[in-house]
Amino acid sequence: MELLVSRSNEKIKYAALLGNSSSERARRGEFLLEGARLCSDAALSGISVVRAFFTAQALSRYESYIREITGRCDECFEISDEAAAKISDTGNSQGVFCICKIRDNKNGEINPTGIYLALENIQDPANTGAICRSAEAIGLDGIIVSGGCDIYNPTALRAAMGSSLRMSVISVACLPDFISEAGRKGMLTLASVPDAGAEDIRKIKFTSGVVCCVGNEGNGITRETADACEKKVTIPMRGRAESLNASAAAAILAWELKR
Amino acid sequence: MELLVSRSNEKIKYAALLGNSSSERARRGEFLLEGARLCSDAALSGISVVRAFFTAQALSRYESYIREITGRCDECFEISDEAAAKISDTGNSQGVFCICKIRDNKNGEINPTGIYLALENIQDPANTGAICRSAEAIGLDGIIVSGGCDIYNPTALRAAMGSSLRMSVISVACLPDFISEAGRKGMLTLASVPDAGAEDIRKIKFTSGVVCCVGNEGNGITRETADACEKKVTIPMRGRAESLNASAAAAILAWELKR
Repeated sequence: MELLVSRSNEKIKYAALLGNSSSERARRGEFLLEGARLCSDAALSGISVVRAFFTAQALSRYESYIREITGRCDECFEISDEAAAKISDTGNSQGVFCICKIRDNKNGEINPTGIYLALENIQDPANTGAICRSAEAIGLDGIIVSGGCDIYNPTALRAAMGSSLRMSVISVACLPDFISEAGRKGMLTLASVPDAGAEDIRKIKFTSGVVCCVGNEGNGITRETADACEKKVTIPMRGRAESLNASAAAAILAWELKR
Repeated sequence: MELLVSRSNEKIKYAALLGNSSSERARRGEFLLEGARLCSDAALSGISVVRAFFTAQALSRYESYIREITGRCDECFEISDEAAAKISDTGNSQGVFCICKIRDNKNGEINPTGIYLALENIQDPANTGAICRSAEAIGLDGIIVSGGCDIYNPTALRAAMGSSLRMSVISVACLPDFISEAGRKGMLTLASVPDAGAEDIRKIKFTSGVVCCVGNEGNGITRETADACEKKVTIPMRGRAESLNASAAAAILAWELKR
């Protein structure tokens, strides 16, 4: 296995670029994944791995995970600790990295009888990732992302614990249009709002599929998306807290829709 | 208002120490709070503010918030941007800081007919804070913290959005003993576990109060605490995700107990 030592090696710089830039990820169609378990799970679940990097310590410590990766990837490199520090997103890196291909929305068709959350402008990638994790655990049929929600952000990938690479994730350019189209397919479309006048999520009834929109942490759902939805729903609050954290709210919404 | 310029001023160093060290917070009985809204809310809700610091920009930008603080605090200082950077926990500080007294567990008595979450060894302070926020919004009667869960950690304070300073928070040295005592008072005591064999949280019935324990992100609840609880409960999972994020799980548990 070829050894890459320098932090300024072109392959190392490219890996760091993919980790740092959402627009570069979109332009290149690739993303950087970090962590022995996450990389191994991705390779095993059919994500296309373009290139892998391992530190010397990782090669001995995570041998079984790394075997799953090297068997499914043509280009594998050993890298120095300095190079690993350049591309790592964590303070305490395991020294295992993969460059993977972004899936071509191959599960991009919505199932009109399924249950989905749609994330609009979620700002904190830890929330994006945690919502994917909750959605998979609770058994939703998929996630719709729009408006700068990037599931391939390193923090989002870590928080998702692999769920975003296993689930159906539909990336849409214009959420209001997508919502309108879902409504025409007979799906119930919901805008979640922190507004006591909206319908209680516990009282929502539906016979076909549902898409429930969750908005930005500070500003909520855009007016255009709210207008495209059939109903406004809310999680009734009792305390003095003005609202729930976006990922706590999404977990409760998903839970109630699956109930 | 006296101006403190140097990063190595004793008062600045002390503020930074309180921000960085959980053991110093416990030893001194004080904590550092950051943010215009958070500091103002704390002062207004009766938290004892020992000392406040504001940058010049903050004094003009957050005048109304700062007025609430200065009216309830003897020692106020203007500080330089360098000093603010030394004590700030965020990349984008508002330049408003208070040193506050830790409350003397004044609400430390549990209400035997109330609904509580007990946090054991939660590692990520963002989870600790988010759980406090959810607990208040959903209307629980309080939170019990043990085993290194520190609600006065700067990240936890920020994630809690002030809820942890308004709610009843009971800090206990030995959670298993506390749980046993709660059981003797007639409360239902629950250990939440990611175990399909445990009782479904939706089927739990109770006539008096409840304490539901939430454990460490990686290792769950300690054996001692699980043994002290009357029942094990779980949130049924459907996907391939092994478990929910601790704060998502806590939100759903709190939601179901209040349902």
